[in-house]
Amino acid sequence: MRVLYHFPVHAGCRRVRLALAEKGVACELQTEQVWQRREGFLRMNPAGEVPVLVEQDGAIVPGSGVITEYLEEAYPDPTLLPGGPLDRAEARRLATWFAWKFHREVTENLADEKIFTRFMRTRQPDSMVIRAGHANVHYHLDYIAWLYERRNWLAGPDLSIADLTAAAELSCLDYLGDVPWDEHPGAKDWYARIKSRPSMRALISDTLPGLPPQAGYADLDF
Amino acid sequence: MRVLYHFPVHAGCRRVRLALAEKGVACELQTEQVWQRREGFLRMNPAGEVPVLVEQDGAIVPGSGVITEYLEEAYPDPTLLPGGPLDRAEARRLATWFAWKFHREVTENLADEKIFTRFMRTRQPDSMVIRAGHANVHYHLDYIAWLYERRNWLAGPDLSIADLTAAAELSCLDYLGDVPWDEHPGAKDWYARIKSRPSMRALISDTLPGLPPQAGYADLDF
Repeated sequence: MRVLYHFPVHAGCRRVRLALAEKGVACELQTEQVWQRREGFLRMNPAGEVPVLVEQDGAIVPGSGVITEYLEEAYPDPTLLPGGPLDRAEARRLATWFAWKFHREVTENLADEKIFTRFMRTRQPDSMVIRAGHANVHYHLDYIAWLYERRNWLAGPDLSIADLTAAAELSCLDYLGDVPWDEHPGAKDWYARIKSRPSMRALISDTLPGLPPQAGYADLDF
Repeated sequence: MRVLYHFPVHAGCRRVRLALAEKGVACELQTEQVWQRREGFLRMNPAGEVPVLVEQDGAIVPGSGVITEYLEEAYPDPTLLPGGPLDRAEARRLATWFAWKFHREVTENLADEKIFTRFMRTRQPDSMVIRAGHANVHYHLDYIAWLYERRNWLAGPDLSIADLTAAAELSCLDYLGDVPWDEHPGAKDWYARIKSRPSMRALISDTLPGLPPQAGYADLDF
């Protein structure tokens, strides 16, 4: 069986889980605590990071961006990079925006700061970092609303890796109750639509030991 | 004419310049000082970063990773992602390694710290940051030597985006004389081979005002 080494409320892993589910590619999940630097895992991915996909024949594909491009080539139907080269570039631009810019400005400061300091037991979460994450999230939600007002999905007429990447990042914050949905109704409309897709179901049943999700996390009507 | 908005000794821009040159796609260069946050530039790329490619028909493609994928689709011959989906995943894995991991651990600490603090006039370069860059570069050079001992190019039998991305990062450090080549003969062999390609010529004639390259920068026999 195909295996994805992952960690439950981890944005890059969630992006891949959404892509697998949208494409109907079955996959077993194996939780990897990367901070233990397990030797067998480092041999699979010298970068020491989740996610890592191991195919049924043992082929190894590491990294969320690399895996999503691989899935698109190996399992092209349905596509998550619809259209021609420029449409695909726009979907990749927004996926990069959320996976790198949003991640660095928001997700790292909120979800990673609260979750990984806890599990790695290195130190207490830093309240200045958390405050920066809360300050930065607004303009990104405005950007989602702006895009969604003009297009059917974030990158164009069809669902793409841009939507899945944004949903993966936001779902980690939403687990913690850190998305000010009520101040951003346009972004909330887009998220409600993607949250109702079957691919989101598995994410919504994730739980972290000792750190349960906020009350509205699993509700489609939030 | 096609235009690439770039900055001279900038790794992401160099990766795209190498890909354009390897594919024989002619392109005019326009230097953009991103820290000025020019309005016309922000309209092209809301992320406010170089590189940005503008095609002859006005189509805009921003970001080094997005542009290299776009070039591969729009100008597939010669390919920089040779082989099947798994070979392409390996080339993308290593491109990501150099563009993100090497960049964050080494290039940001050395080239960006020395060059961009100077041009942005924000502060003096931080000697602790520079020291971290010098400490981190060794294991990456060992990794290049390890790969190159086992393969014809970094990702496999053929030149790929992995080689161009590694060369783009290292060429910025090499401009400053910050690569300890003599301690890493295996990595030096690989770099000497890629440095002799015609695509590297334009990079080698880059200069930054007030910050000339180190003496051996342009020499093929370094």
